[in-house]
Amino acid sequence: MITNKQVFDVLRQLMHPEIKRNLVELGMIKDVVVREDGVTLTLALPFKEVPIKDDLVRDVREAVAKLGDSLKVEVKLAEMSQQERAAFMTASDGGPKQAQSMNKVARVVAVLSGKGGVGKSSVAALLAVTLHRRGERVGVLDADITGPSIPKMFGLHETPPMGPMGILPAETGAGVKVMSINLLLPSEDEAVIWRGPLISSAIKQFWQDVAWGDLDYLIVDLPPGTSDASLTVMQSIPLNGVVLVTSPQDLAGMVVRKAARMAQHMGVPILGLVENMSYAVCPKCGEQIEVFGPSQAMQTAMQLGVPLLGHLPLDPELARRCDAGGIEGYAAGSFEPIAEQVVERVPATKTVPTF
Amino acid sequence: MITNKQVFDVLRQLMHPEIKRNLVELGMIKDVVVREDGVTLTLALPFKEVPIKDDLVRDVREAVAKLGDSLKVEVKLAEMSQQERAAFMTASDGGPKQAQSMNKVARVVAVLSGKGGVGKSSVAALLAVTLHRRGERVGVLDADITGPSIPKMFGLHETPPMGPMGILPAETGAGVKVMSINLLLPSEDEAVIWRGPLISSAIKQFWQDVAWGDLDYLIVDLPPGTSDASLTVMQSIPLNGVVLVTSPQDLAGMVVRKAARMAQHMGVPILGLVENMSYAVCPKCGEQIEVFGPSQAMQTAMQLGVPLLGHLPLDPELARRCDAGGIEGYAAGSFEPIAEQVVERVPATKTVPTF
Repeated sequence: MITNKQVFDVLRQLMHPEIKRNLVELGMIKDVVVREDGVTLTLALPFKEVPIKDDLVRDVREAVAKLGDSLKVEVKLAEMSQQERAAFMTASDGGPKQAQSMNKVARVVAVLSGKGGVGKSSVAALLAVTLHRRGERVGVLDADITGPSIPKMFGLHETPPMGPMGILPAETGAGVKVMSINLLLPSEDEAVIWRGPLISSAIKQFWQDVAWGDLDYLIVDLPPGTSDASLTVMQSIPLNGVVLVTSPQDLAGMVVRKAARMAQHMGVPILGLVENMSYAVCPKCGEQIEVFGPSQAMQTAMQLGVPLLGHLPLDPELARRCDAGGIEGYAAGSFEPIAEQVVERVPATKTVPTF
Repeated sequence: MITNKQVFDVLRQLMHPEIKRNLVELGMIKDVVVREDGVTLTLALPFKEVPIKDDLVRDVREAVAKLGDSLKVEVKLAEMSQQERAAFMTASDGGPKQAQSMNKVARVVAVLSGKGGVGKSSVAALLAVTLHRRGERVGVLDADITGPSIPKMFGLHETPPMGPMGILPAETGAGVKVMSINLLLPSEDEAVIWRGPLISSAIKQFWQDVAWGDLDYLIVDLPPGTSDASLTVMQSIPLNGVVLVTSPQDLAGMVVRKAARMAQHMGVPILGLVENMSYAVCPKCGEQIEVFGPSQAMQTAMQLGVPLLGHLPLDPELARRCDAGGIEGYAAGSFEPIAEQVVERVPATKTVPTF
């Protein structure tokens, strides 16, 4: 009778037609079961629909069928999990890079909005600061290549040095690790006028070639939009979940719902929704002013079926601290319950190498 | 002696190696001067640096040199103007589309920020509304493909019909013409998860295949970022100028300065800077509250060497009207001086077909 090993061996001969690596190495072959009369196995695809799906199924069936006379071969299809897909992407890219193979990142949380200017970067930075204050080892990957604001908020301006294992991330006063394109530009005002493929390749490098070391949390700050940068992060980085950020306007809610749809399409769990800029407090009379109109966040959260993690006020003090590079000195009391819920909701993963 | 016509005829035989159209047709040959002892001409390139520059110069020189014995041929180089470049892009794309050849758009003004959420779309919409109130024929091209907000602000939800000449733009109650991806989606919450090339092609179609008809102003609402969408607009649409939008934060200013650099790189005139969300007014005590901290707009305008067109307050009434699709009913008194300055500063162009 045929052994599982024989099945794997024969499929190790089968190259992915586009990637030129074999299907076993790419993690596409799972659940091989050999019975008297035939073989059943699962072909795991990175996405539900890939153009060459039928070709792959046929090739796998034909390759395994050659192992015996009139062997019945059943090929089931499955979609890879977020973690498997990231491993597939890394393998298809020539295996883990040196830095990446040394990194141990326990949890990756992306901050997503779809809409710009709702304070995504402040939420990402405050999440990093709050987690760090709780004693976690935290990094921030700024995936906003054309509008990076993370370094300025933390007052980081130095070009990060090269280490033996890859680029070393910058480190804030308190000890949060940061990587951003703005640290690599000659001047922070310099424009990065790149089309999508270059944007994607920069983001992949920030994941693969940066010596993040051991982290409990890596926070990824995504740019607005659901195009190249967001797609690349969701396809190439094994996200444990995303935090959605919105502002009170229904107009913002609409674009945030688009981003939520994208996360759902890509199989990334949504940890919850944060409403930013909910109100301002008049410094003279203490009145709460809904400058963007009444909150629509609860409706948006319910439409999406995700928890509302909290509301944040518009705080001129936060704006000032961000402009001055001092976000680590911000009290952020109102942010603690939000961070607490993020911690509770992130699916627990073992500390494993990132590939 | 050789004639100018002979020079053009011989260059009409010379195909652009990448585009497969001849150099004359592409508008690359200018200022042909024939003298006793030789020929001088200018080769106009769409951008200062194109990889095949040297090949093109050599090919042109050799082709013209064949017209006479020991003819001296001098080829000067020039960069195309914004208008010439857009014509080049259209020609390289197979000539003007049917809709485009019927459109007469007098002036195209893009609203740009680089940073999201500073109210770029509201400024674009208010500019359109204000110009329309002054009796101008106005259209709005929503180039924000992944986060389109223009239709919602105007309360537009119907799919635009096809006309004999191309897609007909939607029309607002007052009569502003609008085209946006959100009018073409099955639901306004649907995400557009596209990489750059698809984004670019949608924007080009909004310019080429939409039957805009006769317009005094086409306002283009750009998405955040300096990647595909902005690049495509600046390369493929003959912009007369851009209006930059910022918010009081220096963090926003930094990203806006990146966008300004991009416009300068691409040779698009910056008409001026608008600061949005400058302050909120307390409805209880009338206090002006700088919710994003003190204004940095004057510094930003000075650094860029562009005029500051004005400050706009954070107005909950505007947010409410945008959410309800009623921006055309907004008073917008504070916007009139800004629109006035835009009109004054847009370089005057004749009403010509858009190709």
